[in-house]
Amino acid sequence: MNLLEALQSTVGATHVLTGPDAAPFLTDWRGRYKGQAIAVVRPADTEQVAQVVRLCAQQNVPVVPQGGNTGLVGGATPDESGRAVVISLSRMNRVRSVDTDNDTLTVEAGCILQTVQETARNANRLFPLSLAAEGSCTIGGNLATNAGGTQVLRYGNTRDLTLGLEVVTPQGEIWNGLRGLRKDNTGYDLRDLYVGSEGTLGIITAATLKLYPLPVARCTALLALDSVPAAVALLSRARTGFGASLTGFELMSAACLELVTRHYPQQRLPLAGPVEQHGWYALLELSDSESETHARERFEAVLGAALEDGLVQDAAIAENLAQSHALWHLRESIPLAQAEEGKNIKHDVSIPISRIADFVATTDDLLQQHFPGVRNITFGHLGDGNLHYNVQGPIGEAEPALLARQDDIYQLVHDSVHAFDGSISAEHGVGQLKRDELTRYKSPIELQLMQRIKMALDPQGIMNPGKTLQDATHI
Amino acid sequence: MNLLEALQSTVGATHVLTGPDAAPFLTDWRGRYKGQAIAVVRPADTEQVAQVVRLCAQQNVPVVPQGGNTGLVGGATPDESGRAVVISLSRMNRVRSVDTDNDTLTVEAGCILQTVQETARNANRLFPLSLAAEGSCTIGGNLATNAGGTQVLRYGNTRDLTLGLEVVTPQGEIWNGLRGLRKDNTGYDLRDLYVGSEGTLGIITAATLKLYPLPVARCTALLALDSVPAAVALLSRARTGFGASLTGFELMSAACLELVTRHYPQQRLPLAGPVEQHGWYALLELSDSESETHARERFEAVLGAALEDGLVQDAAIAENLAQSHALWHLRESIPLAQAEEGKNIKHDVSIPISRIADFVATTDDLLQQHFPGVRNITFGHLGDGNLHYNVQGPIGEAEPALLARQDDIYQLVHDSVHAFDGSISAEHGVGQLKRDELTRYKSPIELQLMQRIKMALDPQGIMNPGKTLQDATHI
Repeated sequence: MNLLEALQSTVGATHVLTGPDAAPFLTDWRGRYKGQAIAVVRPADTEQVAQVVRLCAQQNVPVVPQGGNTGLVGGATPDESGRAVVISLSRMNRVRSVDTDNDTLTVEAGCILQTVQETARNANRLFPLSLAAEGSCTIGGNLATNAGGTQVLRYGNTRDLTLGLEVVTPQGEIWNGLRGLRKDNTGYDLRDLYVGSEGTLGIITAATLKLYPLPVARCTALLALDSVPAAVALLSRARTGFGASLTGFELMSAACLELVTRHYPQQRLPLAGPVEQHGWYALLELSDSESETHARERFEAVLGAALEDGLVQDAAIAENLAQSHALWHLRESIPLAQAEEGKNIKHDVSIPISRIADFVATTDDLLQQHFPGVRNITFGHLGDGNLHYNVQGPIGEAEPALLARQDDIYQLVHDSVHAFDGSISAEHGVGQLKRDELTRYKSPIELQLMQRIKMALDPQGIMNPGKTLQDATHI
Repeated sequence: MNLLEALQSTVGATHVLTGPDAAPFLTDWRGRYKGQAIAVVRPADTEQVAQVVRLCAQQNVPVVPQGGNTGLVGGATPDESGRAVVISLSRMNRVRSVDTDNDTLTVEAGCILQTVQETARNANRLFPLSLAAEGSCTIGGNLATNAGGTQVLRYGNTRDLTLGLEVVTPQGEIWNGLRGLRKDNTGYDLRDLYVGSEGTLGIITAATLKLYPLPVARCTALLALDSVPAAVALLSRARTGFGASLTGFELMSAACLELVTRHYPQQRLPLAGPVEQHGWYALLELSDSESETHARERFEAVLGAALEDGLVQDAAIAENLAQSHALWHLRESIPLAQAEEGKNIKHDVSIPISRIADFVATTDDLLQQHFPGVRNITFGHLGDGNLHYNVQGPIGEAEPALLARQDDIYQLVHDSVHAFDGSISAEHGVGQLKRDELTRYKSPIELQLMQRIKMALDPQGIMNPGKTLQDATHI
């Protein structure tokens, strides 16, 4: 029996895809990466995943796990050799249990993030992970990449929301680590090692996740600011004034909102005067466990004081849900407006919050020195130190001119990030996109520690090879 | 030059202790474990730690890292062979930096926890880790054991408070992972692997830790309850009603408080009637970011409703700081009152909160069946699912009779913990005490994964051998 037949006999012939059926699984959704595979296999349960991995391990065939295929770094696309088997977790989409007294739920890797959110809400609980792809990404992919999103300031990244995991090892064994415990000091933290390892150490098949009480009320405001240092000072004040109720603090330059309002004229800022009147804008969100009235009073007290002190230049507090959505819509439209404006170069970086203002000023200057006329479209989750430091070409310049300089711009920005003790991948992961760049910024000792772990857990090197790490020279 | 001379030349002769000078470092503070060592070495900085480890590695000499020596599982005591070198981090006690805009500080491993707390407070920030030994334990020890304490419900364990680490590897190399970033998805999570690994994978020499705003007001209350299920229901209600302001939820049986008030008659419950009138008591703490008035009103609203609904039988809210301290003092006196009462057997366990009531009922019954007359002294951090499920001998029985049955009682309780999907070490770690028991409850695959990591990072097996894991048969 050859491998294909063995796979068919394991998961059923209809769940082993080849030819045109396999095609959607062999490229990422943006079409940046294309690969080939022996087959795409869709197991029904953890035991089948383990059997498929054992079959592949026996023949030294690489395995590429895949969730919703919504990643941004090519982490779920096989290489072009055609040697690999893609394992899609999409059929493993059951909610195994909800435990409201323990504030946990246990779901399979193929669950769509939105299903996890809705399952929590139906149990009168919040699962806080929230991001643009939530309607199609899977929780397994979120775990594999330690996804971030809009609620990290209060609730942390996917790692922070995870209590337990079930994992199929590269040897096709099943580790049942589905613990619903908030305290467990019985050995090495395998859970956090698998989270964020992009399928290179094993396949996450299920997880036990934390739930939170649903907030009773939310408030949203758009604030006009003079500068990035003013935004940093406001963040500090908001953290003190709102405590854990502060659930969102997004920063946007005037250039971002100018793009949005120009390309989508139906969208307007609820503030007097033109967008360019102020240099920067912040979107704040408060989640309250008490009441609408309390949330509103508190919001007005802290923001009112910031206005009086001159830290904030102007402010608009959403009066209702529709206005709140409109404010978030401004923020969420920035990437779309950028695409309307033309090709651009994206950087998903993080910087210690105390150095963000210097980073922006210094990097803006360096860019102008080396690439005169390029436009900064800078926004991001300031509360997490996470900037989407994006670069648009000079006005009137043809797009190919910018793209020709893409690698040089990447390097200039990432060198600057490194100089400011930042990270070149805040929330998107490494995958194929940043694998080689990692070797430029990580210390040799850190890369060596990672290689040692990879070789210890996957000595055959069959788990998602070529992602996160360069292939090691096996000893 | 022999090893001792080489060590002296590295750190200075006065910092290489032998004979009686070394004695305090060769036993744990409770005197449960005693060991021997070639010497106790006290390096001044990270580079010296690295040099000492390199010297030891060259001669295949085991290394035992030690902080404040306040652990409860023998994790910092060398074995009796006398082959090891103890590395005390106590001289490495500098605060390297405080960054209020980034809400982080960077400290060396030998910093006393209380110093870290005070440094934060002087910067108008909270470092929330808090536990009984805070006046003498070091942050390095807290990191090595992933210490818990009284604020876990809101702020998490030591791991959750850590952003970056500096580590000396078993090869004597220095990994500088002192990042102050809340988002960084550039590879494997080495940080969380070192945290909680009890010095068996490397020596943590410094850490970048998270800071929080100081609460503006705190409220404390003692509540009388009928049962453990009532306590679990109250916890759920408090989490919803107080959100992230709920910073403490401690559970105590009436037997605990009976012991305290009998041995320390100056301590009284601020409730009418005898202690035994109610079966259980809860100590709640609310930390507010707004005002005393707001905290008080909110506390009274939620607790008042619980009283009205019959979920709470009686309640006393502290009127001032002195009364609040008196309530916490009742809770903190339980272990002392237990010691006054006589020898007892302690279990530091965690259980999913939804199963805690069943666990207590079932295990209490089992104990009575097998060890008639033993007394349960059950208390703990209910909000974290963490119970100190302690067992006192029958009234009037001589202590040796209890201690003779210690291992049988351990096994009965830990078997029950395992049956309820719990952990046999919630916050104290494994060390020597629970190393062999781990093999009874962990799956072979999990033990094997841990051994693979140990062998990958410490192939010589010189880092704190015999702790956490049994010695592996090296391949």
